[in-house]
Amino acid sequence: PHEQKRYTGMRGMNLEEDITMSNKYYLERDIAVIYKKPTPVQIVKVDYPKRSAAKITEAYFRKPSTTDYNGLYKGYYIDFEAKETKTLRFPFANIWDHQINHLDAIKRHGGIAFIIIAFTTLNEVYLLDASYMIEKYRSDGVRHIDYDYIKEKGHLVHQGYAPRLDYLSVIDRYYLKEEKNENPKK
Amino acid sequence: PHEQKRYTGMRGMNLEEDITMSNKYYLERDIAVIYKKPTPVQIVKVDYPKRSAAKITEAYFRKPSTTDYNGLYKGYYIDFEAKETKTLRFPFANIWDHQINHLDAIKRHGGIAFIIIAFTTLNEVYLLDASYMIEKYRSDGVRHIDYDYIKEKGHLVHQGYAPRLDYLSVIDRYYLKEEKNENPKK
Ligand SMILES: [Mg+2]
Ligand SMILES: [Mg+2]
Repeated sequence: PHEQKRYTGMRGMNLEEDITMSNKYYLERDIAVIYKKPTPVQIVKVDYPKRSAAKITEAYFRKPSTTDYNGLYKGYYIDFEAKETKTLRFPFANIWDHQINHLDAIKRHGGIAFIIIAFTTLNEVYLLDASYMIEKYRSDGVRHIDYDYIKEKGHLVHQGYAPRLDYLSVIDRYYLKEEKNENPKK
Repeated sequence: PHEQKRYTGMRGMNLEEDITMSNKYYLERDIAVIYKKPTPVQIVKVDYPKRSAAKITEAYFRKPSTTDYNGLYKGYYIDFEAKETKTLRFPFANIWDHQINHLDAIKRHGGIAFIIIAFTTLNEVYLLDASYMIEKYRSDGVRHIDYDYIKEKGHLVHQGYAPRLDYLSVIDRYYLKEEKNENPKK
């Protein structure tokens, strides 16, 4: 039944919400401290009415400088972006240049950086190390990554009830184990 | 002359801006990846005018769940809050319960957590490990920390031109060295 969980509008759910719920689960059980960053907003005008809360009356969305999520797990700095796609490819139009550069900087400074990609029509979620995304993104002429490549290089994230998306168990299995044994990613 | 730098309104400067400029310096020189989190805002109403950017017309400030700054330095997860005070004490009214709990969680999970406190009338900035702040905050009847205590337990942050506030050199000297030798904070 867990496997039947679909990322559809009908369910009234989405990848972002599932990650937020998973982070809440990790936080409440004192497993990890990972948050979504607030949406960056350029505030232009604020009203200060008497006896009630300050009200922002003019503001604009800004481009995020970094990724959406970061935090701390078992002493490791964790940083990732999460994206849904309805097709069998991840188009680079979905990610900014400076987000790629940010993920690259995180790897360079010893953090764990990845993308979580949900293929909504397949109901599959993958964790892909940022190195693959960065390499493809910087290759001439390549404007997307195929599902097959993500399936090959990435790791399927288990969907369950709590946590909804257990992406930290992927980190345990493939990053922290690699770190101990042979560390092929560094 | 650097020592003459004052945190006054006249100078048109403040602690937050100095930290932001320092983080920019660290980022551009590829020393560290540390950002201020966007101000958390509850967005209620958005207009989508034709041919121009989406305009937020009703929004409210939310309490931050965490601290203002986090990032990555030499493989370490870094997390801190920055506060100015005009008096010779740091009043706990300046910090939220859940920010204290957040800093505590960061230490528990192996991150580096601290407060940067600017005494604006003295023109002195200190980095104080979160453990001292947490302990005092949770002591019965204590509603502030005195300057003398912060001076004793904290570390003076050098003010210069670039970076304006070299707080990472404090991390080098007192955290990373401790880590290698005896690690008394863990
Ligand atoms: Mg995003
Ligand atoms: Mg703050």
